[in-house]
Amino acid sequence: MNEPVDLSEALAKFDEPFAPRIVGYYNGNKLQVAKVRGEFVWHSHPETDDFFYVVSGTLTIQRRDRDVELGPGQVFVVPQGVEHRPVSHAGAEILLIEPAGTPNTGDSGVEPSREVELEPRLR
Amino acid sequence: MNEPVDLSEALAKFDEPFAPRIVGYYNGNKLQVAKVRGEFVWHSHPETDDFFYVVSGTLTIQRRDRDVELGPGQVFVVPQGVEHRPVSHAGAEILLIEPAGTPNTGDSGVEPSREVELEPRLR
Repeated sequence: MNEPVDLSEALAKFDEPFAPRIVGYYNGNKLQVAKVRGEFVWHSHPETDDFFYVVSGTLTIQRRDRDVELGPGQVFVVPQGVEHRPVSHAGAEILLIEPAGTPNTGDSGVEPSREVELEPRLR
Repeated sequence: MNEPVDLSEALAKFDEPFAPRIVGYYNGNKLQVAKVRGEFVWHSHPETDDFFYVVSGTLTIQRRDRDVELGPGQVFVVPQGVEHRPVSHAGAEILLIEPAGTPNTGDSGVEPSREVELEPRLR
């Protein structure tokens, strides 16, 4: 990352839900912006925590034991190995942090999104 | 982190500049909110990148080669080993991510802030 990344501007560059775009890296983690619209798949990440930050809209992170509701400016970390499902019926824009190489569908068996950099030459 | 953390609410709980408060953890990294007011010390982190996100205000990350200007909603990562100095004359509120144990003053020789959790029982 040579220049600051404005998360809202980055999010304005695509519309597809559940298709994270990498905007930078931090110690081998991918910094991704993503849109949530509707229900994602239930999954967990056996190897990593999952960092969520809501830029706009409202996001429900369903867990088997309870729902966690997130609004703009709020952070939540789903611990490694905990099953969860991101849902937003009204739509949400988020920043996600996971180690590079982590499939967004985790252990669900569902084909993950390809890892896509929003802009060239991020590394 | 059992509940979402609202970054602005967390930042409203203290006033001291350059004294990060830990609000959660992600894979052994501390998620910290901090206030910047005036000039910090020049330093680098030989072992880690440094993640900055501006919640409010404006932040200048001075580097020896150039200044990087950040406003609300913007992310910047200072690469491992790169000397930098955070400065904000008008004041800024930020989210910082670094591995737990990383001194905020890096290799400057200046005594680092103690690692303080904003709320008990974060782990």
